[in-house]
Amino acid sequence: MVQTRRIELKTKGNCDIIDITRQVAHEVAQTGMKNGTVTVFVPGSTGGVTTVEYESGLVSDLRGLFDRVVPTNIPYQHDRRWGDGNGHAHVRASLLGASLTVPFVNKRLTLGTWQQIVFLDFDNRPRSRQLVLQIMGE
Amino acid sequence: MVQTRRIELKTKGNCDIIDITRQVAHEVAQTGMKNGTVTVFVPGSTGGVTTVEYESGLVSDLRGLFDRVVPTNIPYQHDRRWGDGNGHAHVRASLLGASLTVPFVNKRLTLGTWQQIVFLDFDNRPRSRQLVLQIMGE
Amino acid sequence: MVQTRRIELKTKGNCDIIDITRQVAHEVAQTGMKNGTVTVFVPGSTGGVTTVEYESGLVSDLRGLFDRVVPTNIPYQHDRRWGDGNGHAHVRASLLGASLTVPFVNKRLTLGTWQQIVFLDFDNRPRSRQLVLQIMGE
Repeated sequence: MVQTRRIELKTKGNCDIIDITRQVAHEVAQTGMKNGTVTVFVPGSTGGVTTVEYESGLVSDLRGLFDRVVPTNIPYQHDRRWGDGNGHAHVRASLLGASLTVPFVNKRLTLGTWQQIVFLDFDNRPRSRQLVLQIMGE
Repeated sequence: MVQTRRIELKTKGNCDIIDITRQVAHEVAQTGMKNGTVTVFVPGSTGGVTTVEYESGLVSDLRGLFDRVVPTNIPYQHDRRWGDGNGHAHVRASLLGASLTVPFVNKRLTLGTWQQIVFLDFDNRPRSRQLVLQIMGE
Repeated sequence: MVQTRRIELKTKGNCDIIDITRQVAHEVAQTGMKNGTVTVFVPGSTGGVTTVEYESGLVSDLRGLFDRVVPTNIPYQHDRRWGDGNGHAHVRASLLGASLTVPFVNKRLTLGTWQQIVFLDFDNRPRSRQLVLQIMGE
């Protein structure tokens, strides 16, 4: 069985990190499926998905990682060509990845106690986002 | 329902970044499945898969990321032991990841408008590659 | 068809890198399914999963990557707030990712010859871990 759900988000951009765990869990529960996987997919090239212990210290530390590894203040060919100013956002998104697959068992996500699913919006402006949840199971 | 397809690629190696979106979409369409997921898997340890807006600026910027973060010109224990000269390629591949799962709905991949699926060949020489597509759905 | 299996591990922490290929292959074979995918999921926020050619040189090189990119000796807000001393472990885990999906065909994982599935324990102490394998197919 396959069901597609979507999550709507308003973000601030600029490495906004949003906890979507509750929404993902809710959509999985709504399907009535007992066991399977939910694939959280970002249909766009300036956002990514991963998991983290969602507390303000780590939210800040994760932003620090991207500031170090994919800085905003180095030249990007993308910006030279297109003038978007968001070359770093694209590179960060490609590095982090657009998909995460989380198992569920007895209708519950198999996350750890201190583990949340997060969407990271790397774009350089506020965005309205729609994430795709592909829920497969029985 | 499960169907396995394979994509054949000739690459230049050395961080060659190849847009495989059309081939993945084609293989998904060929299955006749309406809704599900395609897992793009790299059966090898010197390549990876992700998504990016495929234009020459970002292709260059993405290469720049790997040159900064996993440089070719630092010592690798792998090279010291095996003399392959591709230690950086292995490390890059492990960092980026060997699998990407993309949902499809009504026979269409749920990619963003400016988002392509890419294979990155990090090896230090041209390669012939075969990627695995595991397509599951109904 | 969906079957959930679990793998138990004892790790040394501190970027311990453990080859779990044999255990994953064994659990897949035990299901009796012929074709499908196994999603290896880390239910915790200080470990990650990827693939690598598992030899001691690359194990060392992969540790070197994380030491460079997410150093232990820079300040983390997580540590300032919670005093855990494992802020770097959380950030490394978020970067690498908690899920990997590997296809299997005719009961065999479609891994490359020199490609192993590894669990990385980034925490700053030995841990007992339980990974989730969600095996789906037919």
